[in-house]
Amino acid sequence: MRNCRIAGYGYYLPKNTVKFGDQIRYRSNDQETELFMAVKAVNSALKNARLKARDIDLIVSASAVGVQPIPCTAALIHEQALKGSSAPAMDINTTCTSFITALDIVSYMIAAGTYKNVLIVSSEIASAALLEKRKEVYELFSDGAVAMVISSTNKKTQGVIAVKQCTWSEAAHSTEIVGGLTGLNATQLTDENYDQYFFKMDGLDILRACTQKLPKMLEEFKAENNISIDDVDMVVPHQASKALPLIMKKLSIPKAKYIDHVKEYGNQVSVSVPFTLCKAMEDGDISPGDKVLLCGTAAGLTSNILLMEV
Amino acid sequence: MRNCRIAGYGYYLPKNTVKFGDQIRYRSNDQETELFMAVKAVNSALKNARLKARDIDLIVSASAVGVQPIPCTAALIHEQALKGSSAPAMDINTTCTSFITALDIVSYMIAAGTYKNVLIVSSEIASAALLEKRKEVYELFSDGAVAMVISSTNKKTQGVIAVKQCTWSEAAHSTEIVGGLTGLNATQLTDENYDQYFFKMDGLDILRACTQKLPKMLEEFKAENNISIDDVDMVVPHQASKALPLIMKKLSIPKAKYIDHVKEYGNQVSVSVPFTLCKAMEDGDISPGDKVLLCGTAAGLTSNILLMEV
Repeated sequence: MRNCRIAGYGYYLPKNTVKFGDQIRYRSNDQETELFMAVKAVNSALKNARLKARDIDLIVSASAVGVQPIPCTAALIHEQALKGSSAPAMDINTTCTSFITALDIVSYMIAAGTYKNVLIVSSEIASAALLEKRKEVYELFSDGAVAMVISSTNKKTQGVIAVKQCTWSEAAHSTEIVGGLTGLNATQLTDENYDQYFFKMDGLDILRACTQKLPKMLEEFKAENNISIDDVDMVVPHQASKALPLIMKKLSIPKAKYIDHVKEYGNQVSVSVPFTLCKAMEDGDISPGDKVLLCGTAAGLTSNILLMEV
Repeated sequence: MRNCRIAGYGYYLPKNTVKFGDQIRYRSNDQETELFMAVKAVNSALKNARLKARDIDLIVSASAVGVQPIPCTAALIHEQALKGSSAPAMDINTTCTSFITALDIVSYMIAAGTYKNVLIVSSEIASAALLEKRKEVYELFSDGAVAMVISSTNKKTQGVIAVKQCTWSEAAHSTEIVGGLTGLNATQLTDENYDQYFFKMDGLDILRACTQKLPKMLEEFKAENNISIDDVDMVVPHQASKALPLIMKKLSIPKAKYIDHVKEYGNQVSVSVPFTLCKAMEDGDISPGDKVLLCGTAAGLTSNILLMEV
C-alpha cells in the first residue's frame, strides 16, 4: 500500500463532435491544441482540489504523443499553468496507459513524503494523426485532456494497493506512428512515406494478443496480491475499442463492474483511463473509499493493472 | 536513503568523429541509429553486469528525443534487446537530465522491492537535429548511447541518498526543437518553418539563468540534506558546454572534484551524465563506496542534483 489520494480532477473536451453511426467522437479545432487543452484541464483540477498553482510540487505529463521533441511536455504545461513555480516537470510515457504508469510512480514519491501535491496531466490530439482511409482508427479516436491532483493522505487504507505492468514487444509494431522523431524525422517526409507519419493499428493482431495474454496476467495479479474481482468496486478500463465487452468477458469481469463509454467518447489515447475515472467520480459511480481497478493496454504492447482505494 | 547499486554499464560511441579546433565530436552514420546504439549499449551493460536479458524486470528509456512518436522508445529497445521478455517498458523524459530523473524514480521501486534489476538506457542522435549555420550547437553536440543496470543491494549505505529537481519554465523556450510532434507536425513542414524542426539553443540566456538559479538550488540541497561538498568524492556534471568550469566555479566545486570532458566527447544530451559516470568507473576515477553527485541542467529549464553512494 502506497498512501495517496485523488485531491481533485478536471478535464477538457473539444467543442466539436462528429458522429459515425451511433458513435460520438470529439475533434479539436485549431485553437484547441494539446497544450491549450492540458492547461484548461490543469486549471479545472486545481479549482476542484481547492489548490493554487504554488501548492503543486511536481507536474507529470503522461501523454502518448508530446507537443515538441524538446523540451518535455510537462515543462510547456508548467510554463502556462504553474508560472513562477520551480516545481519539477517530467514526462512519463507508456502510450495509452501513461496515466496508470505515472500514478504508480507518483504513489512511491508521495508515500515517501518527497512530494505532497502532484499534478498528472494527459492530453492528446489523436485526430491530427488519423488518415480518413484507415476507417478503423479514423472512426475510433477522440481528442481531449484530463488533469488530476494526487496528494498525500493520513488515511491508512487509501492509495495504491497493487500494481502489475507487462510489455510484450513482439507486438511493438501492431500500433505505431513511425515518423516524426529520430527513426524517420520530419525532413524525411516524402509522398511515398507520407502514411508512415500517421497512426496505424492492426486491431485484429492486438485483439489476438490481448485475448491470449491478458487473462493470464490478471490471474497472476490476483494471485500475487491475494485479490478477487469481488473485492473491486469498479473496473475503469482503457476505452480501447468497441471490443471492450469481449475483452472484459474474457477476463470474467461482469458488465455491472466496468465502465464502457466507447460509444459516447471513443478512445482518447492516454486520456481515456483518467477521464473515465474522473467522469465516474463526477457522476457518483465511484465514491470515496471505493476500490477501483485501473487497467488497459497500450502500444508496446504494454498492459497495466493498478488497484487503488480512492 | 533508497538502496540500490550500479550492477553494470555499457556504452556505444559512433565510429566517426569530427574536430572543431581541439574539440572532438562523435557523429553517427546511417547504420548507427538511436535504436542501434541503444541496443549495443544494453548488450554491453548486460555482459558487464553478468546478467541475461531474462534477468531484467524493468526497462526505462531515458532519452530527450525518442525513436518514434508511438510506441515509447523503451518498447522498441525491448523488442531488440529483451526479446521474449514481459518486463515492463517505459520512457521517462526531462531532456538532458532524463537519466538522473529515471535513476531517482527507479531507486524508489528497487528500494521497495518491486524490481530487482532495472535497465536505464539513454541514446541520442543529436547531430540529426543540428543546422550547420547554428555554429554554437553544431560544434558542441555528440551522438552516443549508454545503458546501466541498477539492482537491489544488501549494503545499507549504498544507493540514492538525496535528490532535488527544479523546473523554471520561464526559460522553457531557451532550448528547443519545435517541430515533429503535435505542436508543429511533420506534415506542416515548409521552406519557411524548416529551421523550427532543428535544435535551437540560446546559450547566453541559459548561462544567465544557470548562474542565477543554480547556486541557490545547490545551497538548498546541501542545507535540506545536511551535506557538504567535502562529503562528496566526485561530481559528475552534465557536459553542457565549454562553460562548465565557469558554472562549477559559481557552485564552489573545486576543479579536482568534477569531471570535464567536453573537449573529448562534447554534449551528448541525455547520454552525457551516465556516460561520464560509466567512463569514470571504467577509468577508476570513481570506485565502489564513493559518494557521487550527479547534476545538470536540461531544457525546461530543469536542473537535477542527485547524491548516490555507488
